[in-house]
Amino acid sequence: MSHWQEIPGGVTAPRGYRAAGVAAGLKPSGALDLALIVSDVAAIAAGVFTTSQVRAACVDYCRQRLHQKANAQAILCNAGQANAATGDVGKVDVLTQARLTAASLNIAPEAVLVASTGVIGQPIAMDKLETALPHVVEQLSSQGSEQAANAILTTDLVTKSIALEAHIGDRPVRIGGIAKGSGMIHPNMATLLAFVTCDAAVSPHLWQQMISHAAEQSFNQITVDGDTSTNDMLLALANGQSRTPAITEIGPEAKLLQAMLTQVCIHLAKAIARDGEGATCLIEVQVSGTPDNKAARLIARTIAGSMLFKSAIFGRDPNWGRIAAAAGRAGVPFQQEKLYIRLGDFVLMENGTPQAFDRAAASNYLQQDPVIVTLRVGDGSGQGTAWGCDLSYDYVKINAEYTT
Amino acid sequence: MSHWQEIPGGVTAPRGYRAAGVAAGLKPSGALDLALIVSDVAAIAAGVFTTSQVRAACVDYCRQRLHQKANAQAILCNAGQANAATGDVGKVDVLTQARLTAASLNIAPEAVLVASTGVIGQPIAMDKLETALPHVVEQLSSQGSEQAANAILTTDLVTKSIALEAHIGDRPVRIGGIAKGSGMIHPNMATLLAFVTCDAAVSPHLWQQMISHAAEQSFNQITVDGDTSTNDMLLALANGQSRTPAITEIGPEAKLLQAMLTQVCIHLAKAIARDGEGATCLIEVQVSGTPDNKAARLIARTIAGSMLFKSAIFGRDPNWGRIAAAAGRAGVPFQQEKLYIRLGDFVLMENGTPQAFDRAAASNYLQQDPVIVTLRVGDGSGQGTAWGCDLSYDYVKINAEYTT
Repeated sequence: MSHWQEIPGGVTAPRGYRAAGVAAGLKPSGALDLALIVSDVAAIAAGVFTTSQVRAACVDYCRQRLHQKANAQAILCNAGQANAATGDVGKVDVLTQARLTAASLNIAPEAVLVASTGVIGQPIAMDKLETALPHVVEQLSSQGSEQAANAILTTDLVTKSIALEAHIGDRPVRIGGIAKGSGMIHPNMATLLAFVTCDAAVSPHLWQQMISHAAEQSFNQITVDGDTSTNDMLLALANGQSRTPAITEIGPEAKLLQAMLTQVCIHLAKAIARDGEGATCLIEVQVSGTPDNKAARLIARTIAGSMLFKSAIFGRDPNWGRIAAAAGRAGVPFQQEKLYIRLGDFVLMENGTPQAFDRAAASNYLQQDPVIVTLRVGDGSGQGTAWGCDLSYDYVKINAEYTT
Repeated sequence: MSHWQEIPGGVTAPRGYRAAGVAAGLKPSGALDLALIVSDVAAIAAGVFTTSQVRAACVDYCRQRLHQKANAQAILCNAGQANAATGDVGKVDVLTQARLTAASLNIAPEAVLVASTGVIGQPIAMDKLETALPHVVEQLSSQGSEQAANAILTTDLVTKSIALEAHIGDRPVRIGGIAKGSGMIHPNMATLLAFVTCDAAVSPHLWQQMISHAAEQSFNQITVDGDTSTNDMLLALANGQSRTPAITEIGPEAKLLQAMLTQVCIHLAKAIARDGEGATCLIEVQVSGTPDNKAARLIARTIAGSMLFKSAIFGRDPNWGRIAAAAGRAGVPFQQEKLYIRLGDFVLMENGTPQAFDRAAASNYLQQDPVIVTLRVGDGSGQGTAWGCDLSYDYVKINAEYTT
């Protein structure tokens, strides 16, 4: 199903989208901090949100909005203040953001989705945001994706962006995405945000299904430190401007779109894991042989999140014991006599028994980026992949050294 | 129910127990590495074992043995080699250890339980163990607990030991315990072992129930790095040598014994958390207001295990955002509007809203040991406590710097 190619343009690669990012003064640094993504026409909209019991006001707002009607035309996102744990003020501010943005764009307030990232407990500096809004609207352009990708960052080191193009019949269909990750140098900042645009025409129900499925295999399979944020949010728009036939049921076109969408999300998720705090490499853990894919994904995620394993990778130590131990505690039953572990091309364990291998060469392999770990835990057909990063001194430094 | 006092003597404080520890040469360092605990008469025995799918041979052996008959007279424990992931050799070695120990003590092989800790994938140096066995039997004494507590350590910095005494009628009843924790300076070492002795007479079924209940509130509530070992094991003997009436059903005596047992396990568990790798302080997280105790324990454990929270404590940062975020992702539903968070005496959050507090003084409080965090998440009657330690540079150093 991979009859697509990567193209430039991020969220403005699909037809009928414009984006922009400006410095509204919300970040003390003066960097870009206010992003706007707008579709020329109302788009089908779907979302996936943090499962945390402690949520930012914008998360509850967007979830309710999309529950009422799966449809939107604009996404406003600020960095600097997370608008989480801000009580009633926070709820009012989200409504105000939607109203002001709608007025500037001359659309209905209901057509605006809102996301935030930054310091928890701080309300948004609404006066600055209001002053900057006409400016960001003015800047909207079909080349504006990189600006927007920059404006949603907190302490990420690089922007995360991708776009793919395929054909349905003889017409191109495109999906683009930008994301930010878990750079938490400043305490209380901890957000995964991803915005996806698509110019296909899809039914709302199918679009939500596709987004949930893609998130499960991508954003839900990365781990930097196991902490889930108050503001995590994935929003996806599909505006039909490709003028291809509407996709309303499972079939070849739906499968192509699903595969592209999953690929876009995996690309962004891997970029976030690689840019994890203090990370020196990306780790990919591939698991097979479980009864179903869910079980394989769970084992992969448990290994990718193991502090002992992450420390070993930072130390360039081909430590199969920690991989086996993490697999064993994932909560998925398997026979240890069938356990097979490979690090790159080095077979470390077969039939549950440690194998002789060239430790120096295997340690050398761990200088590579990415590091790939492969496990088979039985004879089932289930498989799954997870991504993470190593645990370095810098993680502790970044997260401990801000003292009040 | 706390009508007991702490007494010296560890596992040999209860009547009818002897213990010893010798250097068998299993550890390269030449330190004590072979421990033996023996009851004068056959004792009721119960156990709690690692839930990992990857287990040491001794774990499977003990679980099966106790399943067949809840009864034992001796516990042999070696440090140095974990006998995990050692295939058929490992299974044979456990049987040999039981047989040799039984012969030296002149009891049945079935009366011997076996535990191991050390490097995963390494079989036990059986020749050295066999040579040392007569010596450890010879050393057995009613003052031998501290020697045994020493011999089960791997890279722990201190021994963990306690004994309590209460009265049933006018006769003393005693429970003693020793444990080792998660000092994993050498990679692949990661074991929690705890051995408890008691001189009360208890029915096997009730004793297993009591042990499971105590483990749930103690060892299952500590976290150093979230990694569960292949060798984790809690074994408890009750030999009836207190000559107090047999406890066969729930009543005042059973409640007293349960409370003492839980206290012994909590003491050992806290000692393990405090001695966690690289730890500079013990953290106690108290949660209340959930529908049941299980939910409260889960939230407490999630906070105590959060890398972001642990880093903040190491950095002496009174970071309520990370506490709230960790509580929110524990998987227990609650209304964030009811969230209350206190650090020592500093109220950081009330009704889900950040409170003003003296940050310098709160940061100062974090120089204390232990650090106590208190949460209320609702109006339920559930409560639970968990213990952990902070995340320091030394954790990463200890676990990364051994390179092959």
